[in-house]
Amino acid sequence: MSGKHDFSINKLGEAKILSPMIANMGRDSFSDFIEDEDRVVFNLETKVEDGRRVSVSEDTLEVAGARRKIYFNPAHVHAAIATCGGICPGLNNVIRSVVRCLWYSYGVHRISGIPYGYQGLLPESRYPIIELNPSLVDDIQEKGGTILGSARGGGDRTSEIVDTLEQLNINILFTVGGDGTLRGAYDIAQEVKKRGLKIAVVGIPKTIDNDLAFIQTSFGFDTAVSLAVPVIRGAHVEAKNAINGVGLVKVMGRGSGFIAAHASLAQSDVNFCLIPENPFDLDGPNGLLSHLKRRLEDRDHAVILVAEGAGQDIVPATGLKDASGNTRFTDIGVFLKEKIEEYFKKEGLEVNVKYIDPSYTIRSAPADSYDSIYCARLGANAVHAAMAGKTELLVSMINNCFIHMPIKEAVSRRNRINTESAFWRDVLENTRQPESMKN
Amino acid sequence: MSGKHDFSINKLGEAKILSPMIANMGRDSFSDFIEDEDRVVFNLETKVEDGRRVSVSEDTLEVAGARRKIYFNPAHVHAAIATCGGICPGLNNVIRSVVRCLWYSYGVHRISGIPYGYQGLLPESRYPIIELNPSLVDDIQEKGGTILGSARGGGDRTSEIVDTLEQLNINILFTVGGDGTLRGAYDIAQEVKKRGLKIAVVGIPKTIDNDLAFIQTSFGFDTAVSLAVPVIRGAHVEAKNAINGVGLVKVMGRGSGFIAAHASLAQSDVNFCLIPENPFDLDGPNGLLSHLKRRLEDRDHAVILVAEGAGQDIVPATGLKDASGNTRFTDIGVFLKEKIEEYFKKEGLEVNVKYIDPSYTIRSAPADSYDSIYCARLGANAVHAAMAGKTELLVSMINNCFIHMPIKEAVSRRNRINTESAFWRDVLENTRQPESMKN
Amino acid sequence: MSGKHDFSINKLGEAKILSPMIANMGRDSFSDFIEDEDRVVFNLETKVEDGRRVSVSEDTLEVAGARRKIYFNPAHVHAAIATCGGICPGLNNVIRSVVRCLWYSYGVHRISGIPYGYQGLLPESRYPIIELNPSLVDDIQEKGGTILGSARGGGDRTSEIVDTLEQLNINILFTVGGDGTLRGAYDIAQEVKKRGLKIAVVGIPKTIDNDLAFIQTSFGFDTAVSLAVPVIRGAHVEAKNAINGVGLVKVMGRGSGFIAAHASLAQSDVNFCLIPENPFDLDGPNGLLSHLKRRLEDRDHAVILVAEGAGQDIVPATGLKDASGNTRFTDIGVFLKEKIEEYFKKEGLEVNVKYIDPSYTIRSAPADSYDSIYCARLGANAVHAAMAGKTELLVSMINNCFIHMPIKEAVSRRNRINTESAFWRDVLENTRQPESMKN
Amino acid sequence: MSGKHDFSINKLGEAKILSPMIANMGRDSFSDFIEDEDRVVFNLETKVEDGRRVSVSEDTLEVAGARRKIYFNPAHVHAAIATCGGICPGLNNVIRSVVRCLWYSYGVHRISGIPYGYQGLLPESRYPIIELNPSLVDDIQEKGGTILGSARGGGDRTSEIVDTLEQLNINILFTVGGDGTLRGAYDIAQEVKKRGLKIAVVGIPKTIDNDLAFIQTSFGFDTAVSLAVPVIRGAHVEAKNAINGVGLVKVMGRGSGFIAAHASLAQSDVNFCLIPENPFDLDGPNGLLSHLKRRLEDRDHAVILVAEGAGQDIVPATGLKDASGNTRFTDIGVFLKEKIEEYFKKEGLEVNVKYIDPSYTIRSAPADSYDSIYCARLGANAVHAAMAGKTELLVSMINNCFIHMPIKEAVSRRNRINTESAFWRDVLENTRQPESMKN
Repeated sequence: MSGKHDFSINKLGEAKILSPMIANMGRDSFSDFIEDEDRVVFNLETKVEDGRRVSVSEDTLEVAGARRKIYFNPAHVHAAIATCGGICPGLNNVIRSVVRCLWYSYGVHRISGIPYGYQGLLPESRYPIIELNPSLVDDIQEKGGTILGSARGGGDRTSEIVDTLEQLNINILFTVGGDGTLRGAYDIAQEVKKRGLKIAVVGIPKTIDNDLAFIQTSFGFDTAVSLAVPVIRGAHVEAKNAINGVGLVKVMGRGSGFIAAHASLAQSDVNFCLIPENPFDLDGPNGLLSHLKRRLEDRDHAVILVAEGAGQDIVPATGLKDASGNTRFTDIGVFLKEKIEEYFKKEGLEVNVKYIDPSYTIRSAPADSYDSIYCARLGANAVHAAMAGKTELLVSMINNCFIHMPIKEAVSRRNRINTESAFWRDVLENTRQPESMKN
Repeated sequence: MSGKHDFSINKLGEAKILSPMIANMGRDSFSDFIEDEDRVVFNLETKVEDGRRVSVSEDTLEVAGARRKIYFNPAHVHAAIATCGGICPGLNNVIRSVVRCLWYSYGVHRISGIPYGYQGLLPESRYPIIELNPSLVDDIQEKGGTILGSARGGGDRTSEIVDTLEQLNINILFTVGGDGTLRGAYDIAQEVKKRGLKIAVVGIPKTIDNDLAFIQTSFGFDTAVSLAVPVIRGAHVEAKNAINGVGLVKVMGRGSGFIAAHASLAQSDVNFCLIPENPFDLDGPNGLLSHLKRRLEDRDHAVILVAEGAGQDIVPATGLKDASGNTRFTDIGVFLKEKIEEYFKKEGLEVNVKYIDPSYTIRSAPADSYDSIYCARLGANAVHAAMAGKTELLVSMINNCFIHMPIKEAVSRRNRINTESAFWRDVLENTRQPESMKN
Repeated sequence: MSGKHDFSINKLGEAKILSPMIANMGRDSFSDFIEDEDRVVFNLETKVEDGRRVSVSEDTLEVAGARRKIYFNPAHVHAAIATCGGICPGLNNVIRSVVRCLWYSYGVHRISGIPYGYQGLLPESRYPIIELNPSLVDDIQEKGGTILGSARGGGDRTSEIVDTLEQLNINILFTVGGDGTLRGAYDIAQEVKKRGLKIAVVGIPKTIDNDLAFIQTSFGFDTAVSLAVPVIRGAHVEAKNAINGVGLVKVMGRGSGFIAAHASLAQSDVNFCLIPENPFDLDGPNGLLSHLKRRLEDRDHAVILVAEGAGQDIVPATGLKDASGNTRFTDIGVFLKEKIEEYFKKEGLEVNVKYIDPSYTIRSAPADSYDSIYCARLGANAVHAAMAGKTELLVSMINNCFIHMPIKEAVSRRNRINTESAFWRDVLENTRQPESMKN
Repeated sequence: MSGKHDFSINKLGEAKILSPMIANMGRDSFSDFIEDEDRVVFNLETKVEDGRRVSVSEDTLEVAGARRKIYFNPAHVHAAIATCGGICPGLNNVIRSVVRCLWYSYGVHRISGIPYGYQGLLPESRYPIIELNPSLVDDIQEKGGTILGSARGGGDRTSEIVDTLEQLNINILFTVGGDGTLRGAYDIAQEVKKRGLKIAVVGIPKTIDNDLAFIQTSFGFDTAVSLAVPVIRGAHVEAKNAINGVGLVKVMGRGSGFIAAHASLAQSDVNFCLIPENPFDLDGPNGLLSHLKRRLEDRDHAVILVAEGAGQDIVPATGLKDASGNTRFTDIGVFLKEKIEEYFKKEGLEVNVKYIDPSYTIRSAPADSYDSIYCARLGANAVHAAMAGKTELLVSMINNCFIHMPIKEAVSRRNRINTESAFWRDVLENTRQPESMKN
């Protein structure tokens, strides 16, 4: 079972306490409890070897879920949760689910909400910790955003954060966030170990771009795609109603074009789906502008859907970074609008470009039902993992199973669209755009 | 009955033909037909004069609706409809209603859709006229925009347009558009008269800003307000979730702030509603920035809703005009975002401004039920007016009555929010913003 | 100025206290305050008399709104609000608006929410009074229903209710409800007068059916129509997808068919709009069933929209009454479904009737933006009236003006669709159903 | 590799023609084509055997997708598609996707839409076959239902159906439908084989209940859950606003409670989720009624969500069957409403039950973005399978992979909620209902 990726999960110690789900709730059957030995296949592909069909990989993943025995005495638990980075549909659902599962399933009644992500754990924070309970989180999921507030940065001040955890006697820390947040969580877990503390650090991965590896779909992603659809529909109407109308929509997706690609499949009006994974030229006989011209000559209108990270090789760099340390991108939408207008002016053709950037209205929305269900279960599984004394892990869904993944593995690579996959071919066949727009 | 505003309506001639609604449909009662003598009060206000309470004005308006007798023989009618200017929710509903009323109620079967507004009537137009019938318009109202396309300009080439009308034997022209479109329609009607032609020119007023005088509410306005609401809600979430978050939303409203003001009443999260009718200072002790700072000190977040025409006295002018001849505005949203960020940087306070400009997604949406009902009735009334041989008029709703209004009167002034009215006071009490932000 | 309907409003006494809006808020202009002399025309129609065009009626209405002087000292006010009868979109908006206007504009800080309508004022009520303030009502408008709960009946126990008002020292009572509720309010006001008390009783009319006279449109009505639209669309899909499919939808409307008629204009798929005002036969050559058969022969599918009070002359009576004393109707939808199935079975034709009754999902929804704006202003105007010492009135909107109406007049008749009006003709032309389906 | 479930797929013959995707579209890479040898793991679970971790099952599934070589010459293909049974969100998306993939990716231009399911293939059908092309299906996905119409039954008249296929020279048949439809497709495929014909029969599984085995999630299911949410929210409002209010909602789910269970996770207001897999008693100390009474005593209101097939052991049987041969259920919603009212009457407690049955409004809706994406890909994969000459299979998604499944296996068992699973535990913890309500 060894190998490069054994995906085994760290523990603070042996889980020895009978879970209150069994002890108090009179369950007559245990079959819905998960054993640590329950592991599922990671890579579904198979090959034929010596006449036998076998998996291409022996990697397996630990199944998430409630355990018969837990590590922490619920009466001694002080759990904390922080939401970091940009907002995303589903954050409040996750908070609610974590609080309810701790409270009702385990009897944990000391739960702290950390304001504004890691910033709220820094010594200079002027924002009070929020005491959480089921009544306070009762219908927070009906609002977008996070009741705790969210902010970038601060996660690199590991030592100060662990000082705060110690001072507050926090022994379970849930951090909801993306790549940077999870790296921060990993560092915190290392510092915790170094100090010999018993603090479980459990990450709940958040990326509206869906670009974290080892996560089938991140929460908020389905909502984001569904909210992009009416925006694209509007862009299509604008395009059709103007002489040589071009509807241009920018959606989120810094390193990956998942939202753009899915929205192109969900809404049939997109003619050009531009993603970071599929570089394109503007000029030249096979460049975007030539293809756009042909499209307008044929059909009088066009819709372009562009991920914010697409074409970053052809735009001038800003040279700036945000508080999370991410490169600040040049606005590809504004850039394309200008280039298109310039090109058609030179070509002597009227063109009417309508540019729409819906990002804030998408990410601030409440979760749709798909994400609501997902978050309800994700939060509960994070609690089960923490109560079992597991640490340095994140809770995730792969192949439709909730599983545990070591944080270190999870942040080691990114999820990107494979432009040689059936999925991307389905997108191309839907938009009917050229396979490549490189000369 | 004479006076400055007798609001009497021009006719091409006497209506002598029995309406097919009576002749063919076997109606047993005529009481739902309108007489030209049916006139309604325009100004509802009253005063006491000589001990008697009388209207403050004797102005009355001709009631719109189906007449017993019509001017045109339906078999000889070739009607045309053009949609001009920016798109607006409800355009397809109006087209549909005009076509269906002509076809089913009057038996008119020659109906032409003019592509791209007045442009489609110019000699050089390369877009074909679209033959309209009930089947073609069956469910067009489920889509935003206009199936005819829309464009700005061209309405000043009166003589060429009337040439085209003559060549096509069009004897009823419906023009759907704003101020400029209606002026164009008036000029066309004058030219028609000069040439001794019998062409009825009927305007259907369109302005998503709701800024046409003599029109209670323009179609598309209700939809625009309702679609602004979730955008403001999103801005509020963004504002609440960030440290000193400021959600900044720009809505349509060049000369008037109706969308902004109504949306502020519909959605309670707005703290500052900025409209063209209520100038404000940025700086100084009573300027917007000081008030914003106080708000952030008190509540950590704020939502600003700004009409696109607000603050045009404090922004640098662009010096540009669009194809309709309207001044191109400096983007007040972008300007405010920069000024706010600059100000708080100087004040040494973190601020997070999230700017949202939803305009295209709003104006490209299909009409909501309110506007659908309104457009269904508006289009029918336009047809009734035209078939009765009335011309140089527009169909409008005032005091909840459909009425006829001479175009000349209608374009003589604009509708603006009275900042001394109970309506604006209700807005101020809802946002709890200062009555004035001038120093 | 006298006459049968002088619509003059009762007062508890002279308003002598300067309004805090003027005293405290430093307003520099008074022009947005309303004078009691401000009256508007009620009936817009005019006629020619002695060569002069005059109003057909001299009735005028008192304009609602904030007064310069008020009757009650805000420090002495204990206001209460009760919501009665069935729920309706906008109730929470009204509560919120009343509370905020009392609190912020007048400085009234004693506001009681009465639980479950008049029931909450009865001596045996076991539900506690709810203390209201701006923070408690902050975003209640985002939820449907009423935070106070609502119930039918109890309004006839006038003496006990006034006892409770006295015991609680309530001097302003807002009652939100329909016909029965308003009659109750009138009786309470009479009892108050008889006892020489100074309690202002202000009604806020509520009827999702829009069937109260002297009210242009009741709150919740626009929302109800807009929510009926997707249901009708669904019924149309069901009808089109089945062999001889009939989509049958029942909407609210006991004595009037406003929701059905408006929804038929808003959604073009309705073929038969059945309302109480337009009786119809089932059988016979001109009955509904014959027309339905012809429609199915022509087009294979049909959509019927029926108001709950339609056809009550052809269904068997239940003989029952609800707690408000309203006759319990036989379900016309179920009845029609059976009759249609029976008829086509006899005719030997396959028919697939899909019956949908969406009532609870409609009335429990939050208010749309139109109703939100309306309720925000309605509640404020109710407060202005009460603070000015006016009583026995309801606040209403007629001809787009907020006005005061004596309760006694308001409950004296009902609002019904005039089947000889242009409005109903527009409905008929949209559905293309026969003008009459009586033999 | 053999065993009980080798899931191998039948073929009409060798695929020898180079796919036009390669031949005509100048693709430079083949890596996005699927080989028949590509198979994926079916059961993800693993176990330890001889110190090695191995899959618990060696079953693998053939991966769906475009093949390098196809069986049918596109110029010779006449494809047909039929939609059977009740309507479901996504049907039009599937039709559109099948048509577009045939047309654009393979150059198949003869595509027939069969009206009203198998009925349209029967000799006596009076409905014309519909010729399909990309323009006709351009935006059909924006409407609910199926443009082909749908009907139950007829699938057992195998011989006549194959006669029709022969007469029409159809060589590819897509059938979209549930259990019964798929059994019919299997029988057709058998008859085709017996006659030595070369007709590919490909099933596209449809069940809004999500109750087909070997299918991760059926299309339309996500939409159904998302549309159940506002209905439950409405029921909750109704319940909270009445004295002892009980909101009772019935959702689809004959043999399985997937919609009810997912909706209970998506919308937190459900207190009792009743599904066919978890039988319950009405009476007795642990019956539903006792628990409901306790809930009302505690909280004054309750929401019950019941799947239509729940409690069929406690209702009187109808003894009827529908045209598909399914047992006609007694309406559990109506039954529960009566029983609850009866019980509380006996207990002397006021109760207000509001019963909502939204089924038609849910199943007639257009697909949401999740289902739109799914259907777009499902339809394309069905085409790829058929063009490759595969038959007697259905296209499905398992473990997030599109795969081929022999029809015979697919219809051999049903998908039901495992009440001993973590999923069901998550539901119970969300509703906080008793694990069992059997005495």
